[in-house]
Amino acid sequence: MKRIEHRACFGGHQEVYQHESNTLSCPMNFAIFLPKASRTANLPVLYWLSGLTCTEQNFISKAGAQRYANEHGVIIVAPDTSPRGEGIPNDSAYDLGIGAGFYVNATQEPWAKNFKMYDYIVHELPALIEANFPANDRRGIFGHSMGGHGALVIGLRNPDRFQSVSAFSPIVAPSQVPWGEKAFTAYLGNDLKTWEEYDAVALISKTKKRLPLLVDQGLADEFLELQLRPELLKAACEENGHPLTQNLREGYDHSYYFIATFIGDHIAHHEKILKMK
Amino acid sequence: MKRIEHRACFGGHQEVYQHESNTLSCPMNFAIFLPKASRTANLPVLYWLSGLTCTEQNFISKAGAQRYANEHGVIIVAPDTSPRGEGIPNDSAYDLGIGAGFYVNATQEPWAKNFKMYDYIVHELPALIEANFPANDRRGIFGHSMGGHGALVIGLRNPDRFQSVSAFSPIVAPSQVPWGEKAFTAYLGNDLKTWEEYDAVALISKTKKRLPLLVDQGLADEFLELQLRPELLKAACEENGHPLTQNLREGYDHSYYFIATFIGDHIAHHEKILKMK
Repeated sequence: MKRIEHRACFGGHQEVYQHESNTLSCPMNFAIFLPKASRTANLPVLYWLSGLTCTEQNFISKAGAQRYANEHGVIIVAPDTSPRGEGIPNDSAYDLGIGAGFYVNATQEPWAKNFKMYDYIVHELPALIEANFPANDRRGIFGHSMGGHGALVIGLRNPDRFQSVSAFSPIVAPSQVPWGEKAFTAYLGNDLKTWEEYDAVALISKTKKRLPLLVDQGLADEFLELQLRPELLKAACEENGHPLTQNLREGYDHSYYFIATFIGDHIAHHEKILKMK
Repeated sequence: MKRIEHRACFGGHQEVYQHESNTLSCPMNFAIFLPKASRTANLPVLYWLSGLTCTEQNFISKAGAQRYANEHGVIIVAPDTSPRGEGIPNDSAYDLGIGAGFYVNATQEPWAKNFKMYDYIVHELPALIEANFPANDRRGIFGHSMGGHGALVIGLRNPDRFQSVSAFSPIVAPSQVPWGEKAFTAYLGNDLKTWEEYDAVALISKTKKRLPLLVDQGLADEFLELQLRPELLKAACEENGHPLTQNLREGYDHSYYFIATFIGDHIAHHEKILKMK
């Protein structure tokens, strides 16, 4: 593991590392913010999953999360959104291949060897973080758009590994919208049963441990009606008695200006749950 | 004047406009953050001048200033750093021409027609803002690196137009460092007398109205010793009894991670002065 960026920020440090991922069979970058309190204590870790086209850089330069992470004493890890680099299969579209891993374990060619983002986020990355940084065993997961989908799915399927979950503008039902249909067909094939394991709305009826979900969604989001469809998550949660706080924000769009506005609320939500134990 | 971006952010709006600049003889973009309070009152305006290579986008996407601007009830305007576009003279280096206007009025060819950033910031832009937005006549100016130089020079020369001044990592003595020597030679020619009008350290001994200066400088800044030389500003202020608060910040570098950490302190400094009247 090699440190490639190291910057003082809000009393802590914003760093970027590169490591060889066994799960993805390629070198991967991840960003980590270490607040001041991490010098003297092991802290909870929040995993941020970014959206389509992002690298590990977008969140750390645009969300303004470091201030809140320092205030609340949490580490934030922001991985890349897919395997990347020479020899990694790709597609010319922005919504498939590099920058568009969709947090699944691909089973179809040419993706199956590298596109195992689900396993990377659930297993390899937390193990790496906990072996190398002042992290305790409390973990939260959150993200934006494709990464909001990833956070909901990973949270719902692994409530003992990730004790808190939230999302901005998530793709809540990828099986029912164009972004998800395209990616899941390519990565998972045509058996719709396999899609359900990566679809938050489908998972709500199966999950046993009912972690409360916090979701913020802008009502001026350009992808609202075609790709995001927050009403499907609301209906699934109501039907199954799953606790959901869904904030619909008048005037806000899909950008980091929206995320920056409410990221402090999300970090406070995670801290409250993670420090309960 | 045409609005090209409009995004909800921290209860206000982050917008970008394009207009035809008479001073620069080309179309120019500027960003403006309008806090919630601007819906019902005319507010002070802070002008942010960015550094080398930046457009109007860097500050608005990376500094996290909107939260504080909303809290303090100030508008923030962030212009581009030079004339830009087809027909604008340029140089292949990053530190001359497009993206590197240095906030001077060029007198030398091929720059003299377009590179009048001093007049643009001092006159044309504030007039445009005050005619079209809920701005009162209280103005502050601040910036980073080349833009910190611009803010100090414009503040020192126009204390009645700009009532508050601050800077991050400013080039305090462009006449004495490589960035400034190269740009001033190209834009202003070889008469060193003309350089003094654009050199904060040289201006300190001439200014009559002694606006207090707030400067933050990271001590891990990669340009500290060669280009920035904060000790020259300190010595000039001490010699001339000019009020200076110079915060030297251990571990911080030249990046927006540094700016984001202390931008709230700077906005509070401006608000305090601008709301005194």
